[in-house]
Amino acid sequence: MNGRFFATYHVRADSGTIAARAQAIAVEQSVEMPLEAIDTPEILRDIVGEVADIADLGADVFAVRIALATATIGRDGAQLLNMLFGNTSLHDDVTLADVEIPPELAAVFGGPNHGTAGLRRRVVAEGRALTCSALKPQGLSPERLAALASRFADGGVDFIKDDHGLANQAYSPFADRVRACAGALRGRTTRYVPSLSGSLDAMRAQLMLARQEGIDTVLIAPLLAGFSTFQALVAGFPDTAFMAHPSFGGAARVAPDLLIGKLFRLLGADAVIFPTHGGRFGCTPDTCLRLAAAARGKLLDLRPALPVPAGGMALARVTELLDFYGSDTMLLIGGSLLAARERLTAETAAFTSRVAAHRYR
Amino acid sequence: MNGRFFATYHVRADSGTIAARAQAIAVEQSVEMPLEAIDTPEILRDIVGEVADIADLGADVFAVRIALATATIGRDGAQLLNMLFGNTSLHDDVTLADVEIPPELAAVFGGPNHGTAGLRRRVVAEGRALTCSALKPQGLSPERLAALASRFADGGVDFIKDDHGLANQAYSPFADRVRACAGALRGRTTRYVPSLSGSLDAMRAQLMLARQEGIDTVLIAPLLAGFSTFQALVAGFPDTAFMAHPSFGGAARVAPDLLIGKLFRLLGADAVIFPTHGGRFGCTPDTCLRLAAAARGKLLDLRPALPVPAGGMALARVTELLDFYGSDTMLLIGGSLLAARERLTAETAAFTSRVAAHRYR
Repeated sequence: MNGRFFATYHVRADSGTIAARAQAIAVEQSVEMPLEAIDTPEILRDIVGEVADIADLGADVFAVRIALATATIGRDGAQLLNMLFGNTSLHDDVTLADVEIPPELAAVFGGPNHGTAGLRRRVVAEGRALTCSALKPQGLSPERLAALASRFADGGVDFIKDDHGLANQAYSPFADRVRACAGALRGRTTRYVPSLSGSLDAMRAQLMLARQEGIDTVLIAPLLAGFSTFQALVAGFPDTAFMAHPSFGGAARVAPDLLIGKLFRLLGADAVIFPTHGGRFGCTPDTCLRLAAAARGKLLDLRPALPVPAGGMALARVTELLDFYGSDTMLLIGGSLLAARERLTAETAAFTSRVAAHRYR
Repeated sequence: MNGRFFATYHVRADSGTIAARAQAIAVEQSVEMPLEAIDTPEILRDIVGEVADIADLGADVFAVRIALATATIGRDGAQLLNMLFGNTSLHDDVTLADVEIPPELAAVFGGPNHGTAGLRRRVVAEGRALTCSALKPQGLSPERLAALASRFADGGVDFIKDDHGLANQAYSPFADRVRACAGALRGRTTRYVPSLSGSLDAMRAQLMLARQEGIDTVLIAPLLAGFSTFQALVAGFPDTAFMAHPSFGGAARVAPDLLIGKLFRLLGADAVIFPTHGGRFGCTPDTCLRLAAAARGKLLDLRPALPVPAGGMALARVTELLDFYGSDTMLLIGGSLLAARERLTAETAAFTSRVAAHRYR
């Protein structure tokens, strides 16, 4: 995988700044550090993102086409998202508009195992559109859901999926629900499509149980499960068809203080890295303070998490940032230390000693 | 878990429509169907989201506080995101602004196992801020990264994390990188923090290897890994501290045709559900057509995936939608069939027969 593949970003900018903005994205989505600090010609040639094209779409929006290195993906679904939009997703002025999938990546990920034809075969439906409905509301018992499924099937629907809100709740555990609904449809053409939830382990157990019950199609929300989880299931259960649900497809709009500060902590993050104000990202000082407070402030009896401001910080800002965040923080400086090149150790020492010596106001 | 917890959404609306909009969010994030079609009083009482408060923030933005049912979470991290913002994240006019974590959820998820104090202890740092740097650019060999780590450590930095772009690529496989970097820092106070990638299986293997090498702190991007993966790792490796990276925190801005149509397919989705135009969501007809084309159009030698338009469709729109999407599609109608209540079977039959009888133009 020594090739390149192209990602297109739509960027709000003016004609005077777009070239620099495009180059910044190409760097952000590859090596994420100052190019002048890279002394390996192979990396500059083979790894660093390259701006291939900039097109003016009008109304101060430009389409920026960037050649990314296929080698950076490492055959992993989540890493694909990471290299496409990981950090750049945090910028307000950019959307990821398109990706041109090269054969190497198509071969790695493989696409549907069944696709349209396989779904049609399942329900013996050719030359017409397929039909689907959903079991809800959540809160119903497995028996009530199964009765509903039976009624949908009576109406001739092809697929009956779980509401994506149905997970493994006490009022309708996955195993009981699947046994009941699969039983209700046994011998019919209509397919019941249960919704997977939980970790890869949990989803695998759900799939094995579903298969025992004759289920051949399941529902998954890749943005909730994680692309790598989805990838592993598709590889591990090649006989099963997967319906993908778009839930959480708009995650960008979770307030960063909530998502990074409070929720990551709730899930168990001991430290939370976030883009601080005045760096390469757009967080305001207010947002940063709220995020730090969410991470380390009182929250029931949860241990505090350490806020780690980052994203384009330099030595010159250490004092200011320590004054701003206080001592219960971890400063993360990457590129600006690397930019010191042969003076890296000294620059790092300057950083650490400045932090050690700081007097909090 | 029979209690409620509160989520606050910021909603762009005017004062004449905000009450209805707030109620729509409360329903979307709980039962996702018409309340009048729910005939179980316990579900209306215990499961359906309730608008607790609406506050005018000015400039046509309102803070809507909604009481969600804790029981819907089912002890799962991804399901938490799902119930907080799963479908509502797809609306352009809403951000998820805050969540008030109740004790039940704090007990389920548990928060950091180590937190600030544990990280301080690791690097024997009290009464001052901690320091961190990053190993990059990706493309460097394990030996070069280890040499870099050694130089950072010479400078006295507390933590040295992998660039979040470092995964398990050929030029620096996780195992080789960790052995090299851990070896370079052995006997020092400075901690090397490798970045986890891949599926839960892969991450577990990485953590076991890292532990053998004396590593006690790792990096993870929860939005890439999936919250349930993160949750499982935190539970399975209680001795390890986790640093969370915000990569992909702004996922909302991935174009839906790319994310749902092309990427979900690339990863193996046999069918992709998406919010169609004219329904409860804001996708334009153009976006919907692009999404359908991405899912089922020619894409190298990948099998086509079946587009499944959904989200507030009704029987009355079947003809229009079939004309619009053609026959290689699957229509998903949920709430509007359920709203037929005792006529559900008949309504479903009307749906399926209309689809079967449709003449494509």
